[in-house]
Amino acid sequence: MSEDHFVNPEVANAVGDWKGYVEAKLGFRNHWYPVRFSKEIAEGEAITVKLLGEALILKRIDGKVYSIRDRCLHRGVPLSKKLDCYTRDTITCWYHGYTYRVQTGELVNILAVPDSRLIGRRRITTFPVEEAKGVIFIFIGDTEDGPPPPLAHDVPPGFLDDDVMVLGKHRVVNSNWRLGAENGFDALHIFIHKDTTLRHYRVFNFPIGHTPLPGAVETVEAPDGPKGVIDDFALHKPAWEGEVDGEVVVRGVRTGEASGTSAAMKTSCWLPGVLKVDAFPAPGLTQFEWYVPIDADTHIYFQTIGHEAKTDEARVKFANDFETIWKPHGLDGFNADDIWAREVTQPFYQDDYGWLDEMLCEPDVTILEWRRLASRCNRGIQTPEHLR
Amino acid sequence: MSEDHFVNPEVANAVGDWKGYVEAKLGFRNHWYPVRFSKEIAEGEAITVKLLGEALILKRIDGKVYSIRDRCLHRGVPLSKKLDCYTRDTITCWYHGYTYRVQTGELVNILAVPDSRLIGRRRITTFPVEEAKGVIFIFIGDTEDGPPPPLAHDVPPGFLDDDVMVLGKHRVVNSNWRLGAENGFDALHIFIHKDTTLRHYRVFNFPIGHTPLPGAVETVEAPDGPKGVIDDFALHKPAWEGEVDGEVVVRGVRTGEASGTSAAMKTSCWLPGVLKVDAFPAPGLTQFEWYVPIDADTHIYFQTIGHEAKTDEARVKFANDFETIWKPHGLDGFNADDIWAREVTQPFYQDDYGWLDEMLCEPDVTILEWRRLASRCNRGIQTPEHLR
Amino acid sequence: MSEDHFVNPEVANAVGDWKGYVEAKLGFRNHWYPVRFSKEIAEGEAITVKLLGEALILKRIDGKVYSIRDRCLHRGVPLSKKLDCYTRDTITCWYHGYTYRVQTGELVNILAVPDSRLIGRRRITTFPVEEAKGVIFIFIGDTEDGPPPPLAHDVPPGFLDDDVMVLGKHRVVNSNWRLGAENGFDALHIFIHKDTTLRHYRVFNFPIGHTPLPGAVETVEAPDGPKGVIDDFALHKPAWEGEVDGEVVVRGVRTGEASGTSAAMKTSCWLPGVLKVDAFPAPGLTQFEWYVPIDADTHIYFQTIGHEAKTDEARVKFANDFETIWKPHGLDGFNADDIWAREVTQPFYQDDYGWLDEMLCEPDVTILEWRRLASRCNRGIQTPEHLR
Repeated sequence: MSEDHFVNPEVANAVGDWKGYVEAKLGFRNHWYPVRFSKEIAEGEAITVKLLGEALILKRIDGKVYSIRDRCLHRGVPLSKKLDCYTRDTITCWYHGYTYRVQTGELVNILAVPDSRLIGRRRITTFPVEEAKGVIFIFIGDTEDGPPPPLAHDVPPGFLDDDVMVLGKHRVVNSNWRLGAENGFDALHIFIHKDTTLRHYRVFNFPIGHTPLPGAVETVEAPDGPKGVIDDFALHKPAWEGEVDGEVVVRGVRTGEASGTSAAMKTSCWLPGVLKVDAFPAPGLTQFEWYVPIDADTHIYFQTIGHEAKTDEARVKFANDFETIWKPHGLDGFNADDIWAREVTQPFYQDDYGWLDEMLCEPDVTILEWRRLASRCNRGIQTPEHLR
Repeated sequence: MSEDHFVNPEVANAVGDWKGYVEAKLGFRNHWYPVRFSKEIAEGEAITVKLLGEALILKRIDGKVYSIRDRCLHRGVPLSKKLDCYTRDTITCWYHGYTYRVQTGELVNILAVPDSRLIGRRRITTFPVEEAKGVIFIFIGDTEDGPPPPLAHDVPPGFLDDDVMVLGKHRVVNSNWRLGAENGFDALHIFIHKDTTLRHYRVFNFPIGHTPLPGAVETVEAPDGPKGVIDDFALHKPAWEGEVDGEVVVRGVRTGEASGTSAAMKTSCWLPGVLKVDAFPAPGLTQFEWYVPIDADTHIYFQTIGHEAKTDEARVKFANDFETIWKPHGLDGFNADDIWAREVTQPFYQDDYGWLDEMLCEPDVTILEWRRLASRCNRGIQTPEHLR
Repeated sequence: MSEDHFVNPEVANAVGDWKGYVEAKLGFRNHWYPVRFSKEIAEGEAITVKLLGEALILKRIDGKVYSIRDRCLHRGVPLSKKLDCYTRDTITCWYHGYTYRVQTGELVNILAVPDSRLIGRRRITTFPVEEAKGVIFIFIGDTEDGPPPPLAHDVPPGFLDDDVMVLGKHRVVNSNWRLGAENGFDALHIFIHKDTTLRHYRVFNFPIGHTPLPGAVETVEAPDGPKGVIDDFALHKPAWEGEVDGEVVVRGVRTGEASGTSAAMKTSCWLPGVLKVDAFPAPGLTQFEWYVPIDADTHIYFQTIGHEAKTDEARVKFANDFETIWKPHGLDGFNADDIWAREVTQPFYQDDYGWLDEMLCEPDVTILEWRRLASRCNRGIQTPEHLR
């Protein structure tokens, strides 16, 4: 990846208090990111993933998943191109026999040069891994000076709560991760969901848009917890009809019930790039979704739904509803419109000028708040230099 | 599109009095360009076109065609990706409901934010459109300080004449537009047309090349009309035989008639990039063809043939001859060799060094004259900055 | 090809005494390179090849092969796109009739402009060609100031010896040429050949790796001969077993015979990028293989095997063994692993940083010696400027 002009400095310098956000084309460093579900890596199995530009091998050893950079120290080849695991917890490079301990990255041997002075003195980069709620999280960052912050600081409130059961899916989207986050947190974009088949499975109010009133937007940045921006739809002014030249051309849906102004209660966007949607896709459910940078132009869309389920019966019912309703009509159907919108927006922002040339309107204050908070509270910016 | 080194300044500065031509990789700004035939846009229909780097939507409203940039002001998405026209003369962005008046580009509403202060105060870029001779022309340029110059200043003399009937076609060619113009105006390139099937439909002299004698080349640059370079074949010295090591290896065709030295009488090349070929593809016909920049590497080859037809009978006959002879054997067959030649020439000029490294010969004075005139008389140079 | 940052100067300046090697992304200029076998160009036949960025036409005239740049002086088009040879030893450009003498590159005519002052005063670049051992070599370099150095200075010792019969093949590999040279000369990479089917055709010792002891590596740089680095396997310390955590996980093969420590006796790497492997793929044979740069990212892998054959019977036997054993199990099978390894290594070195970020180990002293010798003894560095 070329390091020249990775981010256009003219643009980054022009945006004021969200410069860091413009620079974070590859994401924020020193944060936790979900990459796969726990069930996707069996004991002894190794898989490859890529996030924040880093190509990694994940392997489960004695129940625990470890993460090691997929690039031999010697000549830079991907170890995974022909994965040689002579023991349970080592990986040997297929090219020249450099052998690494998976847990630590230590160069434990060079099979054909057993007396090399490099042995025991070099290590390949590894990254901390945690599993929670059936999701594998990786910390892409520096750990020389101490352990990473707790996972709880990088997930939205509620996600880790006891009794919350989490189900989901993930797929690759062809846009920068920020266009994912902004699409999700954007109060106005419900305009694209007018025809969602979710309507058939629940009764909800669905305005064509809504604008936050004073007090609707709140930032959370206590030092010992997650950092995010919350947008409370109860303090929004909804628009129910859209007019052109005095004629109503689009109408939202009003149930007549006072149960809220929109299909969800509130949304919130959290570092390092995760959205929480309260009471969505239905009351009693919460959607948590991450936009995990793969490289500058793609991200993993990691979608989950959490539900408090205290009994086996409740868990079975949620699993069933997830498979038959919330996954096909929510994560697949409803969010397919979002994926398409992000991919279509990508060209405008690809050379960074979009950050200058866009023309935001009043409801986009939430997005600006998010950009500022992310710039202010992130723990670092991932750059191509980190990948060398 | 990257703005860095869009044109190599080392090259542009080295070519002297045709620097502007080298810089005009995206074409000349503030000129009229043909893009489609009138019959290609029915009443109420909208289509997309791209020229000089600009992606546009064209829509016909009450008989008149309007042209609006295909990019929402808000987040830069193409409006055409899912064209929402709630009224006859507005386009609403599918993503967030920004609604524009097609004729003016005015932001007339944001459906979901009807009280936005942006409404009525912002406009999307629009471009003037004119139709003449069944062709839709667009003016890519600035109109803040006054109306565009007349279309008649940007088409070759004769094209707009009364009683001239125009028929044609257009297609995309994979070369920069300048290689199109130079291929057409190049007196020597008839070498590639040696085997044209046009021979079967008319009797003509066809030398293997011809060099302008003094007086053959004339420039036209009156302030109130089209600007161009005319090359009169009557003042050319034709070459009828090509020799290698004393042996004739190629021969032209001489009919014995004194009716001219070549298949055409004269060619002329006009700003912003349009060729006129007198008495071609046959006596009584005139070929007018435009090389309209799409982006740096492609152009619309807009081919037309004009014929003075004063009666219905004459018009029917021309339409019939066009379909059965001039289109298949001229615009399709004869010009297919030209298209191929342009596309094969493109790599040499793609990084601009071709303009320095080429080795022109005597008949190429016409091309040099065209480059100088174009540099001297153009109304502006289109750059990537204009596309932001 | 862009000339900006063709090679990262930060990297080239950091590597010390092998800076020239890092800069030689397109290969070394003023050297001889093999491109095809003699039998691939019949009398009168013309073919195209590309090496060191140069696109060439090769034509055999009266038994001798000539090499001329495949780009018309006039507008830069490839002559080969529609090869017009009106005489045995001229090529005429299909576009405008510029006609060149193949042997000298001289512009002998412009068919349609027979009185052009360019004729006889301009020439297209040609390159010296020699044939030896059934191989066509081209000298990519400057000959204005004198003839090229003898071919014998650019091939490994022994290749041109009387009675040596040479057979081989060539193919395109998707890596820079240097990764080819280093893969071949790398003592340690035999690790990837553990499972070669060559085992079934000869008895050999095959350690899993081996490290040169003092005295094993020797450089040859006499002014009047080839320049190279020799690595003598008799002075190597072999590794027969590879251990991980105290367990033997990989074993080499020991025949018990004292006939050598590895499948070959010695390897040597020579300018401009050719490997000699003594006693390989079997005793009595020598493998000579070239890594000829095509462009920055690909090379011609030109593989040959030499065998001293003094009688017709010996020649027939060698030709038969080559087709049935050495080609399928050696050049095809054994070396397929090498090709794959080079292509997988390419991404790490593509932006030059690999030269800084690699982590070589003790046996790689041979590679470092080669890089230094190549930087010290080459006759020039090919750059994009040479291709204009």
